[in-house]
Amino acid sequence: MPKRPTILVTNDDGIHSPGLKALAGALEEVGELSVIAPDRERSAAGHSLTLHKPLRATEIAPRWYVVDGTPTDCVTLGVMGVLKERPRLVVSGINLGANLGDDITYSGTVSAAVEGTLLGIPAVAISAVEPSEHGLATAAAFAVRLALVVLERGLPRDTLLNVNVPAREVRGVAVTRQGKRSYNELIVEKMDPRGKTYYWIGGGEPTWELLGGTDYEAVTEGKISITPLHLDLTNYAAAEALKGWETLLA
Amino acid sequence: MPKRPTILVTNDDGIHSPGLKALAGALEEVGELSVIAPDRERSAAGHSLTLHKPLRATEIAPRWYVVDGTPTDCVTLGVMGVLKERPRLVVSGINLGANLGDDITYSGTVSAAVEGTLLGIPAVAISAVEPSEHGLATAAAFAVRLALVVLERGLPRDTLLNVNVPAREVRGVAVTRQGKRSYNELIVEKMDPRGKTYYWIGGGEPTWELLGGTDYEAVTEGKISITPLHLDLTNYAAAEALKGWETLLA
Repeated sequence: MPKRPTILVTNDDGIHSPGLKALAGALEEVGELSVIAPDRERSAAGHSLTLHKPLRATEIAPRWYVVDGTPTDCVTLGVMGVLKERPRLVVSGINLGANLGDDITYSGTVSAAVEGTLLGIPAVAISAVEPSEHGLATAAAFAVRLALVVLERGLPRDTLLNVNVPAREVRGVAVTRQGKRSYNELIVEKMDPRGKTYYWIGGGEPTWELLGGTDYEAVTEGKISITPLHLDLTNYAAAEALKGWETLLA
Repeated sequence: MPKRPTILVTNDDGIHSPGLKALAGALEEVGELSVIAPDRERSAAGHSLTLHKPLRATEIAPRWYVVDGTPTDCVTLGVMGVLKERPRLVVSGINLGANLGDDITYSGTVSAAVEGTLLGIPAVAISAVEPSEHGLATAAAFAVRLALVVLERGLPRDTLLNVNVPAREVRGVAVTRQGKRSYNELIVEKMDPRGKTYYWIGGGEPTWELLGGTDYEAVTEGKISITPLHLDLTNYAAAEALKGWETLLA
């Protein structure tokens, strides 16, 4: 029997998330899993790495580790410290809710996949727009199919996949580009019991720019969205346009 | 006398950083500043937003606010809550050390500028490769020149500038692309006084791929590097290449 591929599974909702359990349960059939996840919810953790304190990785069940850090920490620690063998695939999720458009810059789920990519390991982030039992089961089943394809074919260099599974019945799969949200983050300003002001970030219904071929459009149409992301943020057109600033500012 | 432009100044090293003081001191001559910075060092905070707890913005001196959150929180809170007027420019820094290549994905300094861009405000992140008094003064002087140009000409849509000021004597200005580090993050594994294993992320000397026109190459040659970054992470070439997966996975 050929050796089963090793897969690192992580998330940003924490080790107790039903999304993580659904994902790990499904991927068991694809390979040897190691689950390394944060001890608590780290949503909106972005791509943050813990440098100012030591980290623990505690094995709470065979090959299930809990880390007192971010999703990025989990992947780094897994690959560089905890695991005896380099994983052949990193899968992050299933996030309880969408990771679409510019919002991915905040996403811990996506960041874990970014870290896998930086370490040279093919990586996938997967999110369920509707995190119901049905939504998670649909996403988990798709994760299996996608993992098999990625393990067989690999991914383009320095590129990860950001996958979003729609809320309703699935009507196909679309390879998409990152959408764009009209920014409307809300801040709640309130008074504490001592009469001092505090702020809470959140609320506000997101609205989206209607652009063709985006992740947002795909899930709206009931399709599973696969967006290939890379780590080169250079705006090459802008670099060309700003070339004249070199002399202007010299 | 025409109204002076309003500028939001922030950083990720915290309100007491000499980099922030150097930057604010220099930008005073360009406009009306509001300084809104984290209460402590938030390096490697990535683009993280605090959603799980309330935040405070305490005015510790006229128009200097300290926030118990991340650089991203500071910009969001500043624009949406604290400031009476929408700033015309966000400047983040001066970071004590470089923000080059893929490392920008972890950078709190860059993330603050990303947040400004998401809010539709021109934004600049500025870092001093050598955070000496001389290095900070050089970076601060350049921040003034650059701020004047950005305020006059604006920036391409959805694009921020990531600026790195070299360690040695400055030999010009280069508009660059994001470089690529050979990944060699180290993990230190140790035993605590009770005999339990812990890990600490860090250490390791970065090595860089020798690519032309990058931020890394520019600062190595003694040039100030300006990299225009955008928020669209889509790898369009990969999206084209993976189009066949739509039927494969349907």
